[in-house]
Amino acid sequence: MNEKKTIVVALGGNAITQQDEEGNIYQQFANTRRSMAGVLELVEMGHRLLITHGNGPQIGNEMIRVELSAKVVPRLPLGVLVGDTQGGMGYMLEQCLLNVMHDRGIKREAACIVTQMLVDRNDPALKNPTKFVGPFYDKPRAEELAQTQGWIVKEDPGRGWRRVVPSPVPREIVAKKAIQLLVENGVIVIAAGGGGIPVYLESNGWLEGVDAVIDKDLASAVLGNGVGADEMVILTGIDKVALNFGKPNQTFLDRLTAAEARKYLSEGQFPAGSMGPKIQAALNFLENGGKRVVIASIEQSAAAAHGRAGTVIVA
Amino acid sequence: MNEKKTIVVALGGNAITQQDEEGNIYQQFANTRRSMAGVLELVEMGHRLLITHGNGPQIGNEMIRVELSAKVVPRLPLGVLVGDTQGGMGYMLEQCLLNVMHDRGIKREAACIVTQMLVDRNDPALKNPTKFVGPFYDKPRAEELAQTQGWIVKEDPGRGWRRVVPSPVPREIVAKKAIQLLVENGVIVIAAGGGGIPVYLESNGWLEGVDAVIDKDLASAVLGNGVGADEMVILTGIDKVALNFGKPNQTFLDRLTAAEARKYLSEGQFPAGSMGPKIQAALNFLENGGKRVVIASIEQSAAAAHGRAGTVIVA
Repeated sequence: MNEKKTIVVALGGNAITQQDEEGNIYQQFANTRRSMAGVLELVEMGHRLLITHGNGPQIGNEMIRVELSAKVVPRLPLGVLVGDTQGGMGYMLEQCLLNVMHDRGIKREAACIVTQMLVDRNDPALKNPTKFVGPFYDKPRAEELAQTQGWIVKEDPGRGWRRVVPSPVPREIVAKKAIQLLVENGVIVIAAGGGGIPVYLESNGWLEGVDAVIDKDLASAVLGNGVGADEMVILTGIDKVALNFGKPNQTFLDRLTAAEARKYLSEGQFPAGSMGPKIQAALNFLENGGKRVVIASIEQSAAAAHGRAGTVIVA
Repeated sequence: MNEKKTIVVALGGNAITQQDEEGNIYQQFANTRRSMAGVLELVEMGHRLLITHGNGPQIGNEMIRVELSAKVVPRLPLGVLVGDTQGGMGYMLEQCLLNVMHDRGIKREAACIVTQMLVDRNDPALKNPTKFVGPFYDKPRAEELAQTQGWIVKEDPGRGWRRVVPSPVPREIVAKKAIQLLVENGVIVIAAGGGGIPVYLESNGWLEGVDAVIDKDLASAVLGNGVGADEMVILTGIDKVALNFGKPNQTFLDRLTAAEARKYLSEGQFPAGSMGPKIQAALNFLENGGKRVVIASIEQSAAAAHGRAGTVIVA
């Protein structure tokens, strides 16, 4: 008999969209169903579950759609587009999960909660946009959009001009109590998709959306800590965390402590664009009450659920 | 002291988008905040609340965006687009509600649930698409899309060619227990946006999306009955239900019984495209456990919450 735990599973972008595919909706549904293998194992063990997911390709497509139709229908701000992808992708994830559970005779309810994520309105990141989003433009068009839309645009070297937006630190889930209530009652909750819709508290106490994107793994840690989760599972494109990644002396790690992870991170072992934020998210989760983090590939997620794959990081 | 009731409030399209406006996101947020007046009164009385909403202009815009970018990014089916609008609009509704509640010193949580709505896969409506959706085309383009996308297209007389989709009868909310749990614990739940994402049960027990749209008032009744709501408030563009609407002998009604409403409906007093589905939704709600329905205008929603405006229909 296993002890029942509360576990947040963060699905990487490749869980839903594969790099070598067009990314049409049939492919997205098929990938999503396959990606539920690890989640299914955790469900069968009776754990309380939350699922989060990235939205990179989907929101990229949304931004292209908005751009190509801007003369005909009004634009939508980035925050509303994140909300849109939470709705459409949440539907897909929920339906796929319910269907694969049905095949195993499991009757648990699932619910997707549209999730606002509080950021600090004094977060220095808000004044320093660094994250490229949306389509590529030539320089004159980029400058015109900067002028008319109030965007900040930068050259993505060798590729063209793009909009850049801030990536602030996620602080707190707005609908935390609702999510907790559902999870504690056995509902599998899909939340904080795409890192959540970034909002901050205005001086009048109002929530206000901000055009920014939040790292989904950092958001998963905030979600997990917010509901008192015991464990976080980050599913991504690699089988295990490695030291000296891609070098001749590359070493895969089965297990490490938070102290070791912190040391390796400070030594620059984990690149900023890929493993770095995942290790940082793992450390945040463990420092705020989490007990265990697993980082594994989508393909090995079922084995990882049983402790037979991936890298385990403990507090 | 009022008795605490469970009330489902259905916001009409004009709660969010006004006909004489462009419908940009600033206008949508401003309208939505104003449209919370009646909801706020009900919140202050301590009632348990669900909010549903239409999505006509929003999903129309989504379909135009998909169309104008179809050569660059893959199309999305109608069901996923409904999910998208539930996410983006749910975010907007939730944020506006939390902000206006903050101004009154009310600290209740709100949550938007992405909602699949079960329809019967043998519903004859699925074989008889009648509802015009999306952009207008010239005849050759419409026929090309019918060919390549498997759509059914028809001429919208005098306006051009458009896609038509079925409007099946909503039967049951998929995430009913989750919604009920939240509502019973005081969370204000936004659900079944745009009538819900239409899905049916395949013979293998899987949920399967269907390209269709569901009447939002009929969906509100299903939502309300599903969670055992006492009351349904339908907010729309008119102040009261009328007999002989638009004629010299027009008579506004303050109160009618379900039996009277059924009689007037069968006599053709309520047009199919506007008041008809609202009265049908009211009757469905009352026949399945609901006790009271109020139909009123958004503008008079605060007065209607106190029984001083609108038309009341009782079982």
